[in-house]
Amino acid sequence: MGQLDPQPAPRRQTRLDRYHDLYAERTKGLKASAVRSLFAVANRPEVVSLAGGMPNIADLPLDFVADTAAKLIRERGPQAMQYNGAQGEDRLREQICEVMAVEQIQANPDDVILSCGSQQALDLITRTFIEPGDVILAEAPSYVGALNTFQAYQAHVVHVPTDDDGLIPEAVRQAVVAVRATGRRVKFCYTIPNFCNPSGVTQTVARRRELLEVADQTDLLLIEDNPYGLLCLDHGPLPALRAFDHERVIYLGSFSKTFAPGFRIGWALAPHAVKEKLILAQEAATLCPPVFSQFLISEYLANWDWLGQIETFRTMYRARRQALLDGLDEHMPGGLTWTRPGGGFFVWVTLPEGLDSQAMLAQAVTHRVAYVPGTGFYADGLGTRNMRLSFCFPTPEDIFEGTRRLGDVVVDALTVARTFGLTAPTEGPDS
Amino acid sequence: MGQLDPQPAPRRQTRLDRYHDLYAERTKGLKASAVRSLFAVANRPEVVSLAGGMPNIADLPLDFVADTAAKLIRERGPQAMQYNGAQGEDRLREQICEVMAVEQIQANPDDVILSCGSQQALDLITRTFIEPGDVILAEAPSYVGALNTFQAYQAHVVHVPTDDDGLIPEAVRQAVVAVRATGRRVKFCYTIPNFCNPSGVTQTVARRRELLEVADQTDLLLIEDNPYGLLCLDHGPLPALRAFDHERVIYLGSFSKTFAPGFRIGWALAPHAVKEKLILAQEAATLCPPVFSQFLISEYLANWDWLGQIETFRTMYRARRQALLDGLDEHMPGGLTWTRPGGGFFVWVTLPEGLDSQAMLAQAVTHRVAYVPGTGFYADGLGTRNMRLSFCFPTPEDIFEGTRRLGDVVVDALTVARTFGLTAPTEGPDS
Repeated sequence: MGQLDPQPAPRRQTRLDRYHDLYAERTKGLKASAVRSLFAVANRPEVVSLAGGMPNIADLPLDFVADTAAKLIRERGPQAMQYNGAQGEDRLREQICEVMAVEQIQANPDDVILSCGSQQALDLITRTFIEPGDVILAEAPSYVGALNTFQAYQAHVVHVPTDDDGLIPEAVRQAVVAVRATGRRVKFCYTIPNFCNPSGVTQTVARRRELLEVADQTDLLLIEDNPYGLLCLDHGPLPALRAFDHERVIYLGSFSKTFAPGFRIGWALAPHAVKEKLILAQEAATLCPPVFSQFLISEYLANWDWLGQIETFRTMYRARRQALLDGLDEHMPGGLTWTRPGGGFFVWVTLPEGLDSQAMLAQAVTHRVAYVPGTGFYADGLGTRNMRLSFCFPTPEDIFEGTRRLGDVVVDALTVARTFGLTAPTEGPDS
Repeated sequence: MGQLDPQPAPRRQTRLDRYHDLYAERTKGLKASAVRSLFAVANRPEVVSLAGGMPNIADLPLDFVADTAAKLIRERGPQAMQYNGAQGEDRLREQICEVMAVEQIQANPDDVILSCGSQQALDLITRTFIEPGDVILAEAPSYVGALNTFQAYQAHVVHVPTDDDGLIPEAVRQAVVAVRATGRRVKFCYTIPNFCNPSGVTQTVARRRELLEVADQTDLLLIEDNPYGLLCLDHGPLPALRAFDHERVIYLGSFSKTFAPGFRIGWALAPHAVKEKLILAQEAATLCPPVFSQFLISEYLANWDWLGQIETFRTMYRARRQALLDGLDEHMPGGLTWTRPGGGFFVWVTLPEGLDSQAMLAQAVTHRVAYVPGTGFYADGLGTRNMRLSFCFPTPEDIFEGTRRLGDVVVDALTVARTFGLTAPTEGPDS
């Protein structure tokens, strides 16, 4: 070495992107999410962010977790910091079965596969099933991160209507029939049965049974995404879809909301043959999900009252939900409606006709409050009159103040709309 | 809840895999890797495994890492255990630029994106560029995990010959021309310039310059995968390909071999526009790579002599390499050849004609020694006469003993081959 020092490459004529023609078709639809572009804004201290979906983890037993991490590294570091298998640690998969039992799921640890957050489990499932153009049914509105993943594999998302009791089973049946009549394949139906992100709506147990009947009759695979199920604020956990059927359902779980998201551990519980495919996909994607995180969470579950901790979280989120609902009741003008979630993180607001939540956002930020416009939660351009408000992160006082600011923004926007006509706001950023 | 208890689903007629017809085409080629199916065997304590690629991390400062983890959780837990952006922590990306500077890379932290191990960066790159049928050039032999990822996106891998100085630039040029003459697109060329997994071969600096010239002349993107570059045992680190050219090269780095794999933190350094694509892909894949791991590694780099630690690793691996090479010299019969790597983890053995490394493996395991057969490192069925031997994990004494056992196996196999004719072994598992 030494005789040939590296030199800067000769300056070439710049193009905007030299590799533009090399990208795969699947990259074309991907764009920065509305949530992402809001991060910069929402992080400013003077803004009350009702936009984020970050859990408030300040109540975690930090001393206990710190001691556990230190002990783990000191005593079992060479194992806990090493590679392991793509499926994940045996012991943690057993413990996950105990966690799922709270929602009346009976599962074999061998059918559980860990992932880098449940987002990555969804990615593995999508890559396992989806060819470009294949149809995914998804409740409307749906989690933006799921729609993003589906888009990354060039799926065609067909939304299925929901009401206050969640996904409408008969509408699922009709959607399956309609899609198949066009010769396309429906690969699965994606749903968040508990405290849906973004709508806050929960499927009733009766609906769950009906949905499974429809799945059976139409030979349909269901993806049950359940990050919020244990954050139920009004009653005990409902039985999961997977509790009723172990062959029609792939269940996704996560420690991001019941413990902490920064360890990036989620999981899928899948029918045996599907699980084998997911393991192979996981090997190609990451070799294995974060190992130290697996060991740490396993110790946490074994040595801390994790159900008691979730009860602590519930109490904390209950106060925040109250602040948001009270604030909306007090500060919103007539003509708006919103959901009253039984748990989770989110309230879904519908604005009166003539208002556009995306156009209104700049005004909101000027008033030091942020939310997520509804369009991101639809694959088909709907949601212009919707806002997702979260009650997970700011203090109850800040949440209440946020609704006051948002109320002012909506009142202003309504005034403008009434002055210039109802159909559309006359100005606003088209970002 | 309660009035409708979950019940087991009615028993249906079983098929082997109900979802067989629903899987995407891309899953068809994925099979359990040779490495994976060896794990069970290699983990038996009586077997000397020369098969694995696990770094020996027992020399890490466990007390320091333990204290650091505890302090991080206690003092900054709510940040370190929270979500963050898909690109990864700013501070760690700055520190990674300092790490890369050791190989003479000048980089902007803004062009670095973190990943769940560098395997995941490779996955994101492949999904960003590859349509089914697109061609990837890869040195022969190539890392099995990369071939696995390429297969997962239905790439067509065309191998390019190497010699003792690494990838042959003129052969790269010819491969590009030949592929383009058939109307197919070459998306990139994949190479491990330092201590290649599996061959142990290193590209000379002169070759690196020639390769970049060919890339320039043929408008070719290079993927430089560099997990082992700092584990150089005979001289200082060579300048990376990326040190000479920042527009033609996507560089992949990892903390798995210089720190610990269980935190699953790798990275890509990419031209600006490509990096933007990779961030979007990362959002869809995981939301963000493991956050706590990022914070912990950042603290480790800031507060520990990480270069000194790598020197400790070098000393340790040097003794193991010596044990492997001494053992091969002493125990192997004539007719075998092997590489003499200047670093990394692997030695590549070529058996005499008539021997088949895959067929011989069962015999080897019976003799309590394991290796990886060569065929996994080729996309085209070559490698039947090759074995990858690793010197990274067992003690020098065990490694030496492993070569003794392996020598016996080879001698036996040669006797059989000479008795029954040279062209093929007459028996052996076809696994």
